[in-house]
Amino acid sequence: MQNDHFLKACRREEVEYTPVWLMRQAGRYMPEYMEIRNKYDFLTMCKTPELAAEVTLQPVNRLGVDAAILFADILLPLEGMGIDLAFAKNEGPVISNPVRTGEDVENIRILDAEEATPYVMEAIRLIRRELDGRAPLIGFSGAPFTIASYIIEGGGSMEYKNCKKMMWQAPEIWDALMEKISEVLLRYLKAQIKAGAQAVQMFDSWVGALSPDDYETYVLPYSKYVLSGLKGEGVPVIHFANNASSMLELVVQAGGDVIGVDWRINLDEAWKRIGYDRAIQGNLDPFTLYAPPQLIAEKVKRILQMAGNRPGHIFNLGHGINKETPVENVIALVEAVHEYSRR
Amino acid sequence: MQNDHFLKACRREEVEYTPVWLMRQAGRYMPEYMEIRNKYDFLTMCKTPELAAEVTLQPVNRLGVDAAILFADILLPLEGMGIDLAFAKNEGPVISNPVRTGEDVENIRILDAEEATPYVMEAIRLIRRELDGRAPLIGFSGAPFTIASYIIEGGGSMEYKNCKKMMWQAPEIWDALMEKISEVLLRYLKAQIKAGAQAVQMFDSWVGALSPDDYETYVLPYSKYVLSGLKGEGVPVIHFANNASSMLELVVQAGGDVIGVDWRINLDEAWKRIGYDRAIQGNLDPFTLYAPPQLIAEKVKRILQMAGNRPGHIFNLGHGINKETPVENVIALVEAVHEYSRR
Repeated sequence: MQNDHFLKACRREEVEYTPVWLMRQAGRYMPEYMEIRNKYDFLTMCKTPELAAEVTLQPVNRLGVDAAILFADILLPLEGMGIDLAFAKNEGPVISNPVRTGEDVENIRILDAEEATPYVMEAIRLIRRELDGRAPLIGFSGAPFTIASYIIEGGGSMEYKNCKKMMWQAPEIWDALMEKISEVLLRYLKAQIKAGAQAVQMFDSWVGALSPDDYETYVLPYSKYVLSGLKGEGVPVIHFANNASSMLELVVQAGGDVIGVDWRINLDEAWKRIGYDRAIQGNLDPFTLYAPPQLIAEKVKRILQMAGNRPGHIFNLGHGINKETPVENVIALVEAVHEYSRR
Repeated sequence: MQNDHFLKACRREEVEYTPVWLMRQAGRYMPEYMEIRNKYDFLTMCKTPELAAEVTLQPVNRLGVDAAILFADILLPLEGMGIDLAFAKNEGPVISNPVRTGEDVENIRILDAEEATPYVMEAIRLIRRELDGRAPLIGFSGAPFTIASYIIEGGGSMEYKNCKKMMWQAPEIWDALMEKISEVLLRYLKAQIKAGAQAVQMFDSWVGALSPDDYETYVLPYSKYVLSGLKGEGVPVIHFANNASSMLELVVQAGGDVIGVDWRINLDEAWKRIGYDRAIQGNLDPFTLYAPPQLIAEKVKRILQMAGNRPGHIFNLGHGINKETPVENVIALVEAVHEYSRR
């Protein structure tokens, strides 16, 4: 491994500089990505290991980030579960057979991940070969709540109304669904690790829609099932719960060696609440990348300052990078993180 | 005043039971509201004092809530500023001349509120006469950031990209805009109080898009200008910043006799951080109203428990009521709050 800063930081070991990678770094703001994207639809890219590998490597080559993250979508495991997945022209997911009843839940299949998503595992093996130790590879999945929200709502949502209705009106159906989803996700992440992922991140993108009490009752046990199940797999596990900074203590209870935080909370306060026995990842507002370089640099310094020189900080955005972000600003960000954090 | 529980709670005085009202209570979930709404478009309803008065009183009559809130829209002051406001068929606001440049900001007018929005003041006078002391009337406005976000983005937004771009790329234009908006909002709220509003609420609906640092630099001074300017007007001021529970301390710094909190934080923790020298309003997830009555009752009890018997809690939802909420559940909620909180 030529660059192990990311993995060291995950384990809270001393590093020469703070490692940085960006959520959705393999993505639409890069011309070289769009060149491929214009030829293939999104799902085809996900399902073709050579294409997935190519766009996974682009940001490593272009930006100098300290980790690669698999190009994939959190909803890829749905097809193996018997749930139809399509992406509309604007790339928003559409599920034509949303899960609403006990019978719908019974019909969900639990396959082995190599059988359900062989192309993901093949992509990981290919990426590892092509990376050849230049940077570690992060695998990922959605978290049970986030996956449930898509499956129940039939796509993206603003309100999660059907999701909450099921939780509160039919908790036994909710529990049965969450059990199945958790099992699928645990198998999916284990398979990614077996295929070569050197760290994994679980994205709970939409759990910020819940109150702390509801999170604790209806979600935490399932997130914990997945995260606990990964102990002993030998790779660091990152748990990112978006818009959940007012219930960080519960997020930590669910697990994760590294806790991801969005930009709605100061990093020093977040880390204090998380506890210094975990590493932390974050937390720049992704839209900061539209600011002038000097302001980006100031904001980078501020976050590094809040992290102190305590080992265990991985610099990242507080959410996925915006699709129109200027690439030169992203490069400036990566350089700024490396420069200002050098010990 | 026959029912002054709400005003007493705002002043942290002892009450017989916890008062309750609901954000967007004058609204689309009520058949009697829809009967009027089907005859008139939304802006016509806002601009016709008799109609605004009628729908303002509906929830007081039907639900037994402890306060009325003026039927209006936070964007009504825009027209007087020279900004075009229309509502698309789904009721989403559309601004055809969004503010993006220094010249756009210069062109913004600051009128007196009686001149810009006479119908709002007339509605308040009419509602006060019709309420005849049965419940106090709350007036309201948007907060500077939230209003700026609509004006800059040209409508609702998910990302606030143009807003953030202006803040960071052209802070002098941002400041000039926020100064003008703050002045308009202060005059608007003062005029509402003069017309008869017995309390006012400032809604910062979208400020949760910002980091604490950006809130402090670009927003707090303007929210503070409005809220400080209302001191001495003799009515309680409620400050509700949605999705801002990780920066409550800054929200408190901006001001308000009562701090509104959404459902993403436990009320006891929120109040502790706010300080017991302020009253608190909240904080039930609006979608809880889709839960079975027994679960609604449990969640009400839990919030009342977290408030303790400390004077100064006003029960409310953590955000506006959903338009398809069953009215019988809303009635059950109001009854549950009164019943379980009776001293």
